[in-house]
Amino acid sequence: MTIQLTERQELIIKIVQDQGPITGEEIADLIGLTRATLRPDLALLTKSGLLEARPKVGYYYTGKSLSSKLSEEIKKLKVKDFKAIPAVVSDKSSVYDVIVALFVQDVGTIYIVSEGGILEGVVSRKDLLKIALGQVDIHKIPITVVMTRMPNIISTTPEESLLAAAQKLINHEIDSLPVVRPVTVEGRERLEVIGRVTKTTITKAFVELGADKLIQRGERP
Amino acid sequence: MTIQLTERQELIIKIVQDQGPITGEEIADLIGLTRATLRPDLALLTKSGLLEARPKVGYYYTGKSLSSKLSEEIKKLKVKDFKAIPAVVSDKSSVYDVIVALFVQDVGTIYIVSEGGILEGVVSRKDLLKIALGQVDIHKIPITVVMTRMPNIISTTPEESLLAAAQKLINHEIDSLPVVRPVTVEGRERLEVIGRVTKTTITKAFVELGADKLIQRGERP
Repeated sequence: MTIQLTERQELIIKIVQDQGPITGEEIADLIGLTRATLRPDLALLTKSGLLEARPKVGYYYTGKSLSSKLSEEIKKLKVKDFKAIPAVVSDKSSVYDVIVALFVQDVGTIYIVSEGGILEGVVSRKDLLKIALGQVDIHKIPITVVMTRMPNIISTTPEESLLAAAQKLINHEIDSLPVVRPVTVEGRERLEVIGRVTKTTITKAFVELGADKLIQRGERP
Repeated sequence: MTIQLTERQELIIKIVQDQGPITGEEIADLIGLTRATLRPDLALLTKSGLLEARPKVGYYYTGKSLSSKLSEEIKKLKVKDFKAIPAVVSDKSSVYDVIVALFVQDVGTIYIVSEGGILEGVVSRKDLLKIALGQVDIHKIPITVVMTRMPNIISTTPEESLLAAAQKLINHEIDSLPVVRPVTVEGRERLEVIGRVTKTTITKAFVELGADKLIQRGERP
């Protein structure tokens, strides 16, 4: 809870939870105070969203705490406002080429694209470490052999919430989500890569939140 | 802002910003309303921390919004309440042993420890990928040759804030922080590894925040 409630306010909430909808007069009678005395408390409780008041009906409990309002603010944050530039390589690359690109771009996961930035696959450091350990010539193996292919790639979109993207990272135990938009190529529906959301993206958002910068960002038009 | 202010409340804030400290009577006079009419507004604005009231002085503006209160709540979260079990291997291991451990434990970074869980080094997937590419026998190279050594390891402690830990991850461009506590071994000050905080840890905390679970967690005794 962001706001510390007084004992009287806690009591009002309890009464409304048990007996709501209930009028302000009735609450005042139960507590043994006047309606006027309770006015600031009822104003605070309705303003904060804990209670709602309906004319001719009275007060009822919404179950919304300030922390759930905060959670609503978090849910409004969009992928498009936080996404990073995608790290991509051509699907003509060898495994060796991709490892070099991974080091040069200093990313943990790289996207494999065909002409026009169309998403074909995803490769992580873990995949590349596994292949590098094998007794194979990584210069000769095409990346398409080892990558995770469409349609088995978990992705996100600019309009998706950052929270939903973070949940995908956790639930699927992956480090990186390509941000995609649908395009039609030669009559087929494909996905163009336009960004990435990683655990680094989420960690940066968390830091902004703690530094009190994220909410303002969320309010940008 | 978590709470949507009314136009009248915005006006009160502006007056207090410009002319505070100022009494409730004076604010009421400026707006052309009675002190009683303003009471719920002033109660809300002081409760929410936007204004503070000092007896015989009046109202003044604190500059604190609800989002900065949220930021204060975030700052209270401690590493000890979120840390994961550390992934460790003995400093007697070969590079090959460590790669196997990395896959078995499914982590991106592993800590190298001597007897008693004393932190000696850190190795990431990136380090291991680099060494695996070289023309060397990874069975024969001791991990101590390739690891990042103390005292060049960024770490955190149980009592540090989760926000400070997240900032270290971002500022030092690393994926994982060992959680340590100081111990004395044979008269020397060393660090025992007791957990880890990674970008996965922070991403999970972000998801809990959005799911309205984090604040309650932060309130745990």
